[in-house]
Amino acid sequence: MHIRLTSGKILDRMKDENLLQAFKRQGVYLVASCGGKGICGKCRIRIFRGEYHTASQGKLHAHDIESGVVLACQTFPESDISVDIPKESQLVLGDVLEISRTKDLLETFRSSGKTLSPLVKWVSLEVTPPTIDDNISDLERLKKSLEAICLKDMSFSHGFLSTMATELREARWKVHLGYIDGTEAVFLAPSASKDTYGLAVDIGTTTVVVYLVNLKDGSLVDVGSTYNSQIRYGDDVITRIMYATEAGGLKELQDTVVTDMNNLLMPMIERHAIAKKDIESVVISGNTTMTHLFWGLNPGFIREEPYTPTLNFFPVWKADSVGLKIGKQVPVYTVPCVASYVGGDIVAGVLASNMHKQSGITLFMDIGTNGEIVIGNNEWLVTAACSAGPCFEGSGIRHGMRATEGAVESITINPQTFTPSLSVIGNSTPIGICGSGMIDAITEMFLTGVIDQKGKFIRGLTTKRIRDGFEGPEFLVSSNEGKDIVLTEVDIENILRAKAAMYAGVSLLVKKVGLTLNDIEQIFIAGGFGNYLNIEKAIIIGMLPDVPREKFRFLGNTAIAGAYFCLLSEKMREEAEEVAGKMTNVELSVSRRFMDEYMSALFLPHTDIGQFPTVKKLLRNKD
Amino acid sequence: MHIRLTSGKILDRMKDENLLQAFKRQGVYLVASCGGKGICGKCRIRIFRGEYHTASQGKLHAHDIESGVVLACQTFPESDISVDIPKESQLVLGDVLEISRTKDLLETFRSSGKTLSPLVKWVSLEVTPPTIDDNISDLERLKKSLEAICLKDMSFSHGFLSTMATELREARWKVHLGYIDGTEAVFLAPSASKDTYGLAVDIGTTTVVVYLVNLKDGSLVDVGSTYNSQIRYGDDVITRIMYATEAGGLKELQDTVVTDMNNLLMPMIERHAIAKKDIESVVISGNTTMTHLFWGLNPGFIREEPYTPTLNFFPVWKADSVGLKIGKQVPVYTVPCVASYVGGDIVAGVLASNMHKQSGITLFMDIGTNGEIVIGNNEWLVTAACSAGPCFEGSGIRHGMRATEGAVESITINPQTFTPSLSVIGNSTPIGICGSGMIDAITEMFLTGVIDQKGKFIRGLTTKRIRDGFEGPEFLVSSNEGKDIVLTEVDIENILRAKAAMYAGVSLLVKKVGLTLNDIEQIFIAGGFGNYLNIEKAIIIGMLPDVPREKFRFLGNTAIAGAYFCLLSEKMREEAEEVAGKMTNVELSVSRRFMDEYMSALFLPHTDIGQFPTVKKLLRNKD
Repeated sequence: MHIRLTSGKILDRMKDENLLQAFKRQGVYLVASCGGKGICGKCRIRIFRGEYHTASQGKLHAHDIESGVVLACQTFPESDISVDIPKESQLVLGDVLEISRTKDLLETFRSSGKTLSPLVKWVSLEVTPPTIDDNISDLERLKKSLEAICLKDMSFSHGFLSTMATELREARWKVHLGYIDGTEAVFLAPSASKDTYGLAVDIGTTTVVVYLVNLKDGSLVDVGSTYNSQIRYGDDVITRIMYATEAGGLKELQDTVVTDMNNLLMPMIERHAIAKKDIESVVISGNTTMTHLFWGLNPGFIREEPYTPTLNFFPVWKADSVGLKIGKQVPVYTVPCVASYVGGDIVAGVLASNMHKQSGITLFMDIGTNGEIVIGNNEWLVTAACSAGPCFEGSGIRHGMRATEGAVESITINPQTFTPSLSVIGNSTPIGICGSGMIDAITEMFLTGVIDQKGKFIRGLTTKRIRDGFEGPEFLVSSNEGKDIVLTEVDIENILRAKAAMYAGVSLLVKKVGLTLNDIEQIFIAGGFGNYLNIEKAIIIGMLPDVPREKFRFLGNTAIAGAYFCLLSEKMREEAEEVAGKMTNVELSVSRRFMDEYMSALFLPHTDIGQFPTVKKLLRNKD
Repeated sequence: MHIRLTSGKILDRMKDENLLQAFKRQGVYLVASCGGKGICGKCRIRIFRGEYHTASQGKLHAHDIESGVVLACQTFPESDISVDIPKESQLVLGDVLEISRTKDLLETFRSSGKTLSPLVKWVSLEVTPPTIDDNISDLERLKKSLEAICLKDMSFSHGFLSTMATELREARWKVHLGYIDGTEAVFLAPSASKDTYGLAVDIGTTTVVVYLVNLKDGSLVDVGSTYNSQIRYGDDVITRIMYATEAGGLKELQDTVVTDMNNLLMPMIERHAIAKKDIESVVISGNTTMTHLFWGLNPGFIREEPYTPTLNFFPVWKADSVGLKIGKQVPVYTVPCVASYVGGDIVAGVLASNMHKQSGITLFMDIGTNGEIVIGNNEWLVTAACSAGPCFEGSGIRHGMRATEGAVESITINPQTFTPSLSVIGNSTPIGICGSGMIDAITEMFLTGVIDQKGKFIRGLTTKRIRDGFEGPEFLVSSNEGKDIVLTEVDIENILRAKAAMYAGVSLLVKKVGLTLNDIEQIFIAGGFGNYLNIEKAIIIGMLPDVPREKFRFLGNTAIAGAYFCLLSEKMREEAEEVAGKMTNVELSVSRRFMDEYMSALFLPHTDIGQFPTVKKLLRNKD
């Protein structure tokens, strides 16, 4: 009995297995918060061919059930079936792109000469066992051993002390003690673990990425990524803040993203047979709102003028205070934030880019759900946010998706036939379009005359690819097994807004610091674009400034890269604190000039074509 | 419609009220962990006259129901009724004895010249409100204000920061900040509270006592006491430790005693209309096992040779880590312990007795569930435990009870008629016998020839008061409305064991420190005896040493007195740490000589009558 996925993969099925189990066994992971009990309703899939029966339909709507939607954990095939797994149900583990990129990151780290120095330091101790004549308390005993190796004034949390008595005896008083900051004991172990692990986590507004890292050599063991399930409460940080404050949903939002992290983590440690107790530290990076929500801190005043976060520099707190399903005492380091709309993800980005060490001036652009910009060098750093919106991460775009397997990542359109040629991540059947594909598509549609300078479809072209959908006009990107992928006029509008916000931000911030684009030595682009971003095309649509192409470098997801560095190295954590302390934030949102710049940038490429000399030339040559 | 209690009190009842509600309205408090939902089964009472109906019988046994036992929260009278409230169901609030004694304590504290300095210190801060040009985080803002008044390096817990943003704004940036130890912020308030409150808690093995104290003037607002509900898992610390470790019941034991504290606290703050937020600190004192259980720490190794506690000096932890239903951030100070069987209750006792400040040598005896002894002065302190058992607190004695209303606290027996004359606390109908009453009863029975030197009933006396009960022979102390109060031979055996353990401990410890009883200048007796202990009679039964009577002083419950002092004063907390650090613990239980001393002390008054010259004389005169 076979299970055929729309990605082209063919899986088998063993007797009595439900689909969730069959998928998992063969490395296809679905979101299943409830662990496959039919409760959470997250492992929804659509069966469009073949026979099956279901044990329960959970809370599925009648119209979903009619169209073949089932819960994988409740479904048992009775013949060969064909299945479509919607992106919301997918848990992406072991992402090939990420793993290959991280090898470079580790090389970069090694070549920096920094030593591997995770959050937790370990010492071996021989504690004198008690006797009837010397029966002072266990803690006084342990303190004596610590003082003997000059570790004084250590503090001991309630959690540490709860289990200490048993641990000391199980280890026969020869223990390995793990501590943080030189001041707080966190773990006791009977022997040094052969391998210990850490988690670097990028909590994006749209995407959550978890790196499982071996802390003995710094290598990446596995990667998992998924949509941030908070999406169900709103696409952007503003709607989430409203939900947290006005609807009293703070705890719910916190639990939601922590559950996402747990759901990513559990299958990873399972498939590498890693004991939970060997996970010893966590580093998270996220924008200021995501960081506040993760820690359950009121984000309400981030949204209200004058936009103040509760805090930017976070103490090292423990995993159990948020419900991470790892050791209760595991320390969690938070990459520090700068301001309400410039968070730890950007500090991590600067760290990963190394721009804070270079004398030349760098422009750093993070094109995620929120667009953020940093300009500066080893002496100064100025930053601003320009709320680009989540479309480049696939959210708010009809067939948008993250840069994972099945995503259209580049497109060219034949100017005669209007037929697109697609390049798909993993060379599989396309199931959606990721950010780089969108930029390509807009450029190609613009250059081939499918859309005008305002992003509107030009009517009367001799192609059936432009058609009327239920949201209005749309362009058919691909059609496969009855599943169409389109870009709608509404999609295009969203993308133009996002690119306009980015460009307006860059434009204004460069002026604010008294420079021109010519003064900038290099431009780093970060964001969830996978391995690919066509700089040329991003300039043509007016998202990136029209400067010599060799100045550009695409860095990928720097929020996770910076978190990964902080997981490995104390020096990196110190640098993160320095960078965050040094960055000057400029509030663009309150500036009239920003609005003007933004309105001008809504055009393709820009109202002032003079700012895009090479695009001007290209368009002139085309005509 | 009237409700008549066996104590003699008569209550009324309003329409639709269940009995629990009617009792509460009229100041009779029952244990009701579930808040009166019929779930916990703790508000059991017995109706022995009148008509009633019940909404539910909860989990009551058939034989209980037959004898009129009901849950007060589920019961509605239909006529005048007569009710017996068993001691397990009673919550004793506003204990008159305790309140009057505490007035003296406050006087003692005032005359010591120490200033009122509770755990939490408060400062007023004017925080600069943020503007769009100065929108650093709230925490950085707060830190600046603290640094301006030289409070640097303060730490901020997760709990504090969770609510800080809202609190700062509600207070319009003019706040009162509460902190502990000069290093950790715990509270933010918009204005200084007119009154703030603290709790001093004595967690005894048998009894839990809570003092609600006004921290602005040190006065006692209310007192509550109840049986420690952990009793259902065992009478003494050993059985509790076994339940915590072998039966995995640690969390259950912790929750049980915390629930007792919550149940005492809630009616108190209700009847004084105190806002929960105005309770700002807690001090607990308990023996080492009770302290470990309260904090959820494994007590297993307290019981196993060489008897080591996890820790003796406890950090200040927060109320929410154990589930106390007060502000999450409320700091809880633990009176430090000395060793596995000498805990914070004894340190508190020394503190309350002031023996650690006097040059003369004091013998301090705490006669609670566990007997503990301290000998020393302002230079040295030696201590030992001698596990007396819980009988003096009413546990393990058929009609035993704590020294609260209705307890027989003194007894004389007519040597001709064997008729006892009773003195009852609160001058009400007797409902049981407390520790001092037991000592009186044994003395009187011994002197009037009801029992022999081994504590056995002498047969053939011409009185019906000695009769055969279902546990063997017993003495009828009183009979009222069909309710008999007796002392059985088994009871007497338990009391003799307890007094023997105490005396053997004193005897051996005095020798161990190279002294004789004559070297002792004063003897302080602590324990839950209410206001009354007949020293003369306690010497006659051989519990206290036969030394001049003017050396004795009865101090009452010093564990709560010391906790109360620690609640009021930083100096007192410092002294507690000093006392605990200074005390040398002697392990009596492993000593053969202790066993010998104990066996000799099981007699009335002692095998070696030479140690009790005045008793010898008394007995000779009698014959």
